[in-house]
Amino acid sequence: MRPDPRVTRIQSLVRTIADFPKPGVQFRDITPLLADPEGLADTMAVLVDMAPDEVDVVAGIDSRGFLFGAPVAVAMGTGFVPVRKPGKLPGPVFEEAFDLEYGSSTLAIHQDALRPGQRVLLVDDLLATGGTLGAAVKLILREKAVLTHVETVIELPDLGGRAKLESLGVTSFSSILQF
Amino acid sequence: MRPDPRVTRIQSLVRTIADFPKPGVQFRDITPLLADPEGLADTMAVLVDMAPDEVDVVAGIDSRGFLFGAPVAVAMGTGFVPVRKPGKLPGPVFEEAFDLEYGSSTLAIHQDALRPGQRVLLVDDLLATGGTLGAAVKLILREKAVLTHVETVIELPDLGGRAKLESLGVTSFSSILQF
Repeated sequence: MRPDPRVTRIQSLVRTIADFPKPGVQFRDITPLLADPEGLADTMAVLVDMAPDEVDVVAGIDSRGFLFGAPVAVAMGTGFVPVRKPGKLPGPVFEEAFDLEYGSSTLAIHQDALRPGQRVLLVDDLLATGGTLGAAVKLILREKAVLTHVETVIELPDLGGRAKLESLGVTSFSSILQF
Repeated sequence: MRPDPRVTRIQSLVRTIADFPKPGVQFRDITPLLADPEGLADTMAVLVDMAPDEVDVVAGIDSRGFLFGAPVAVAMGTGFVPVRKPGKLPGPVFEEAFDLEYGSSTLAIHQDALRPGQRVLLVDDLLATGGTLGAAVKLILREKAVLTHVETVIELPDLGGRAKLESLGVTSFSSILQF
């Protein structure tokens, strides 16, 4: 199969910066991709192509997930639900603590953000260890919504995030790039 | 003039929550607006309508500004530049400290994010005192880019943000809603 020229372009626009945020980490920097009009448009198009047709709402994770999830929601004609850092959402929330690749954190979702049975597409920039995405998955399932697909721009397969998501019941995952 | 029915819908979807994040503050919660497919689409359409035709790149502020700025960039066929909280951007940055409505903070931009002369549209969710947006304006001007327009979903006119932006050289500002 010929490689998708959009994916080739997307990959060429991700910049690798060594030793950020700490020594030994190869940070995948998406800011050149965002800054490139064709790269940004291609990224959104591929994220929409990868998504199932039947999606009621898109969820995205604070804050880089907002960059991709919100445009995907607009493109798919759905609403958008933010999964946020603690203390940001003004209404009653569910919270999930989790371990990060570097440190630990908590995510929150409004308790009334999703209706039971709503089909949710979860979008984020990166799947690494699956800590952040796993917490978002738990929050979405706690709303009794149906998580139909999880997708990211980048996946770091060596860090085992996909197995982590599967252990939480995620049956459908895709990413545009693997590093 | 008949009110724009899109704006009427957008206004009806902003929820006011009293005493968040501290007593006496009327918090304008955009999560119901984001969650509504028509409300979200209308918001993006009005933001694009308010923008000048001649824009080279859209900038948005971490993190709620990402929700609006990224889809506007996609809709306008431009790239997107994130103005971020400190410690998040891996390359060399410019930083600006500023006072918030509640507390103080810092914003950062990659030093290579914008080229001199690039025409920038700056998008955020809210203009309150102008602290956050003012810092973003300073960062954009520090890149020697041209700030053609600043726009937000919500403006709180009583807090004087517009005068603050004008004092920094912003000549073109608009918001969808005023509270």
